[in-house]
Amino acid sequence: MSVTHPLGFRAAGVAAGLRRNGAPDLGLLVADGPCSMAGLFTTNRLAAAPVIIGRDRIASGAPRAILVNSGQANAATGERGLTDAEASVAAAAAHLGLEPAEVVPSSTGVIGEPLHMAEMITALPGLVGALDRAGGPTFARAIMTTDTVDKQATAGAGDHRVGGCAKGVGMISPNLATMLAFVTTDAEVAASDLRRLAAEQLAPRFHALTVDASTSTNDTVLLIASGAAGSGPVVPGSKAWDDLGAAVGEVGESLLRQLAADAEGVTHVLLVEVRGAASEQDARAAAKAVADSPLVKTAAFGADPNPGRILQAVGAAGVPVDPSRVDVRIGDVVVAAGGVIPPEYFDETGDLHTAARAAMKEPEIRITVSLGAGTSGSRAVGCDLSHDYVRINGEYTT
Amino acid sequence: MSVTHPLGFRAAGVAAGLRRNGAPDLGLLVADGPCSMAGLFTTNRLAAAPVIIGRDRIASGAPRAILVNSGQANAATGERGLTDAEASVAAAAAHLGLEPAEVVPSSTGVIGEPLHMAEMITALPGLVGALDRAGGPTFARAIMTTDTVDKQATAGAGDHRVGGCAKGVGMISPNLATMLAFVTTDAEVAASDLRRLAAEQLAPRFHALTVDASTSTNDTVLLIASGAAGSGPVVPGSKAWDDLGAAVGEVGESLLRQLAADAEGVTHVLLVEVRGAASEQDARAAAKAVADSPLVKTAAFGADPNPGRILQAVGAAGVPVDPSRVDVRIGDVVVAAGGVIPPEYFDETGDLHTAARAAMKEPEIRITVSLGAGTSGSRAVGCDLSHDYVRINGEYTT
Repeated sequence: MSVTHPLGFRAAGVAAGLRRNGAPDLGLLVADGPCSMAGLFTTNRLAAAPVIIGRDRIASGAPRAILVNSGQANAATGERGLTDAEASVAAAAAHLGLEPAEVVPSSTGVIGEPLHMAEMITALPGLVGALDRAGGPTFARAIMTTDTVDKQATAGAGDHRVGGCAKGVGMISPNLATMLAFVTTDAEVAASDLRRLAAEQLAPRFHALTVDASTSTNDTVLLIASGAAGSGPVVPGSKAWDDLGAAVGEVGESLLRQLAADAEGVTHVLLVEVRGAASEQDARAAAKAVADSPLVKTAAFGADPNPGRILQAVGAAGVPVDPSRVDVRIGDVVVAAGGVIPPEYFDETGDLHTAARAAMKEPEIRITVSLGAGTSGSRAVGCDLSHDYVRINGEYTT
Repeated sequence: MSVTHPLGFRAAGVAAGLRRNGAPDLGLLVADGPCSMAGLFTTNRLAAAPVIIGRDRIASGAPRAILVNSGQANAATGERGLTDAEASVAAAAAHLGLEPAEVVPSSTGVIGEPLHMAEMITALPGLVGALDRAGGPTFARAIMTTDTVDKQATAGAGDHRVGGCAKGVGMISPNLATMLAFVTTDAEVAASDLRRLAAEQLAPRFHALTVDASTSTNDTVLLIASGAAGSGPVVPGSKAWDDLGAAVGEVGESLLRQLAADAEGVTHVLLVEVRGAASEQDARAAAKAVADSPLVKTAAFGADPNPGRILQAVGAAGVPVDPSRVDVRIGDVVVAAGGVIPPEYFDETGDLHTAARAAMKEPEIRITVSLGAGTSGSRAVGCDLSHDYVRINGEYTT
């Protein structure tokens, strides 16, 4: 039941007419009582109106509900976008008997198009009336744009439950902005500890995701703790904290893999791991450079084991690299050692090439780069670049 | 006659058997006497052996000849690659009656595969014998890999002539590394002034080029002055200097456009200009972010005028942006003003949308972004992302 798997939450989703195709497009997630909330927001400098408002409400207030719409991203909408977002959550708050500041807006859809306010306002009473302990799946479907499947996950953590859902298949299609993810738990966690949990368990996972190197204007990850399990505060250093962290991480990891597997045009997921870096920052930059390289991505689409493209991306990542210390593996096959591709690799019928090609045909292609410069590591989770990606993003449809 | 248009140069190209298809693959460019040479080299940390050697020879010596092969990039080849490159130019020097240090190696082709030394050594006498004042075009064809056309340009500068040629259609295909460009003049220019000329006239142009955001291991631009016009030294501050700079820039601009127009799978060239930036560095980063965005590139392929994708790329470029000051034009059509896309833009049959769509159908699509943060500007020259790009780079061919 995704976000309503933990105790203390109700959710709903309805078709408000914000999307042209009549699909569910308005979702509401509400904690039954006071709760803690932590957020991770896009670093895009042109952040959408709901991101600007949500960031502020979580930092300065005690929000208890999230109103999410698909159809319009409410980005590049200026002052009107801020006014619209405020008005929509104020209307939802009135129906919920909450203060406006207790409702966080979240949007995904076309950049620039103003929110369809009339449709939203009209749909709100029905949405609030549909709130249910079992409403997680309908909420998960209402936040979808061009996702082909909904993404939901749950995990247990001793006395506590963790649930989550997410959406996002690319920055836009034709310009539908955003990755959104909502993770809930019924553990009682203080706001500052919840921020730590989000930073430790969710940030490294969602920051590793890169479908097309395009940080959207609306990316948002929210972690919400209701405390409804009634087992008292969970604090760092305790077994309950470790269990909860593992469960939050498990839900985050599952959503991450589901997002990558539904990326626009995807035929293979890319799991890039960089080890032996001088810093985690270097490792992340190198991993992202490989996962974002159009040449590596097309090679993955074509199942072409191409170590030269991986080395090129590493060398151009903007991090210090000693060529003579770089090793690269595709799957478990060593395709470069000490910066050198073995000459026998160019025998395309030889064992080495054949093994590497087999590793490129896996649904999840693992690329491991060792820099030999230190002990830090990081990873990136991406996907291949296929004809369908070009078709989905390139073919104009009116 | 491209690189042999200026006086004082001879060139040749032959099929040495380095490429599987029997095409010309070994070129030689020689100045008749002492000359000046300036080079721009890849910033990729895994620079190819010929780049390492060439950079050193130009910095510390007085090279007079360039031996260029296609077929093998001689990158990711370790110590063997350095030894092979040294041996190949030493053999060429012997046939030319020059010192080994007077010949610069340059390579483009498959990353990792060792140079085909036997074939190169065997072909050298014929190559040296074929050197000719009219050999520029055969040289230009011998450096091609998957280029569909050769790229040559000439310009006049008063008493002086400038010529050039270039190759490169993507980082690799299936892994053919590199953009190479060679520009010659018969003006007499001191080495330090020639470096300035390269920095002022060639660097901003070739650094603006981005086919697939993939800085190769072998990228090289060489500017060579023979002094054979016999009109005395050309020094900064003179009219001859200004004329020469304009001619070098004209040849560079022509080669840049020819490279973009032959990029892998290209159907539209992208000309992105960023104005009003706080620094040139910011402007360049923003321009490259737009030109490299897979979402902007697929929109260009589909002739979809999508201001949201342009704003997204600008916002994620990692440079300071005040959303309320950002204007975007496609062609001459204002598609975002003060960070806001006009609501009437979403009427897809309206005048604004129709005009923007027409501008996206031009062979060269102009995108202009004004940041309103200062007075600096820069540009990027790229291309769209088409089905053919995916096919060329994704379809594995043995």
